[in-house]
Amino acid sequence: MTREEIFEQIRQKRSFLCVGLDPDLKKMPECVLRNPNPIAEFNRRIIDATAEFCVAYKPNLAFYEQAGECGEAALKATCRYLKTNYPSHLLIADAKRGDIGNTSRMYAAAAFQDLGADAVTVAPYMGKDSVEPFIGWEGKWTVLLALTSNAGSEDFQMLELADGSRLWEKVLTTSASWAGPDKMMYVVGATKGDMFARVRKLVPENFLLVPGVGAQGGSLEEVCRHGMTSQCGLLVNSSRGIIYASVGEDFAEAAAREARKLRDEMDRHLTAHGI
Amino acid sequence: MTREEIFEQIRQKRSFLCVGLDPDLKKMPECVLRNPNPIAEFNRRIIDATAEFCVAYKPNLAFYEQAGECGEAALKATCRYLKTNYPSHLLIADAKRGDIGNTSRMYAAAAFQDLGADAVTVAPYMGKDSVEPFIGWEGKWTVLLALTSNAGSEDFQMLELADGSRLWEKVLTTSASWAGPDKMMYVVGATKGDMFARVRKLVPENFLLVPGVGAQGGSLEEVCRHGMTSQCGLLVNSSRGIIYASVGEDFAEAAAREARKLRDEMDRHLTAHGI
Repeated sequence: MTREEIFEQIRQKRSFLCVGLDPDLKKMPECVLRNPNPIAEFNRRIIDATAEFCVAYKPNLAFYEQAGECGEAALKATCRYLKTNYPSHLLIADAKRGDIGNTSRMYAAAAFQDLGADAVTVAPYMGKDSVEPFIGWEGKWTVLLALTSNAGSEDFQMLELADGSRLWEKVLTTSASWAGPDKMMYVVGATKGDMFARVRKLVPENFLLVPGVGAQGGSLEEVCRHGMTSQCGLLVNSSRGIIYASVGEDFAEAAAREARKLRDEMDRHLTAHGI
Repeated sequence: MTREEIFEQIRQKRSFLCVGLDPDLKKMPECVLRNPNPIAEFNRRIIDATAEFCVAYKPNLAFYEQAGECGEAALKATCRYLKTNYPSHLLIADAKRGDIGNTSRMYAAAAFQDLGADAVTVAPYMGKDSVEPFIGWEGKWTVLLALTSNAGSEDFQMLELADGSRLWEKVLTTSASWAGPDKMMYVVGATKGDMFARVRKLVPENFLLVPGVGAQGGSLEEVCRHGMTSQCGLLVNSSRGIIYASVGEDFAEAAAREARKLRDEMDRHLTAHGI
């Protein structure tokens, strides 16, 4: 999926929402648990209810891995369901992978080929040759961790380097020479709203995948004020706030309601930015 | 498995070898491919042939993920086989995971509980709350990436910080306050042999998991000279050099031969260090 195609979806739907598919059997209503593949069924109903309000879905692979073989099967079924029924939605495998070259190649194949994902999140610590195998895939996206939404981002990402910049800034500037804004996105947490102006100085055009709105307390308004470009340039993720809006039988309707609320807010921000 | 138990194994076997189980169907002999679960069968024969010469096994999860459901089944079967038949060998899940707290908890459960691994490799970029869920497991090991064996380690790990130290050094000193040498190991690549003296200044006691000997060109002699402690403190990994020593029907015997060769060399280094 090209950058222009993503922007076109955003314009049409008046939304740059990404719905995080982080299924947790402890939070699912009983009606879903009686299905032979409860996680896939839960996701299917969330997807059907929210598809018109979002442009991307992001399964976090940890939630499926932890559920063993059934989780693995649910992840595959969910990805297949998305690619078949909602091919214009971006499918982001949130894997945060990264290893030496020949191993990263395996992770890239697992995400892009086996799952059919359009994008995969990648950790930068091991450097260029650990990221390049992801970049090498035609028509696919690498989403590199830059500045994450958690408290631990202070430990290393915010470290000041000898040249006065911060580590997360160096990750942006260094990796920008590996791939341009048509292949690379960056994770920048919404909890770091005041950093978005600085992010845009360094990577003016790249799409940013923004977690941390909702449960983690980030402000959509601040993210948009500093981070939005003329082609939007933002994919804002919400997981728990949408998929667990209700833990009753009305979970899908409640998810749709929350997604619509975010879409409406995003619509206003897009309009305010002349999009 | 405690630090003392690992050291006891090393003393008894005169080896601190870790065999990397990175199965690749393209490199396996035909006799294995005719098995209904070829990857598990390949691993089983490698394990039986090498167990007396090593103290640890390290499946890299990428190789199994990439092989889809059969890969997943092979990984589970291999881990079960190891825990049942070789319970005193350390089982290291090489996953290089790391995510926000509630997600890292899932990855930790997947590795420690579902696979029964004794240790898991973790990426440090997201900081303390991304690593703590791994540390929290009683009797298990967190193996944090510090200085990796690939060329890309230059990109970020070697960056000089404002205080004059390098990023990889900061990863060691900061994370040392999260967990001590009875819970935390570090990945330090053998290709950085001259760095081991510096590593030992910062973490004098922790076990180091050392990839890069063999195919990647690292020197065992140099690693031992600068990195060995009075309790050894090293687990040196070899994958391709052992498991693909022959791609013929004698692959297991060839693997044993290479593992024995490394064991003999390690024996000499242990003796030279009074162990």
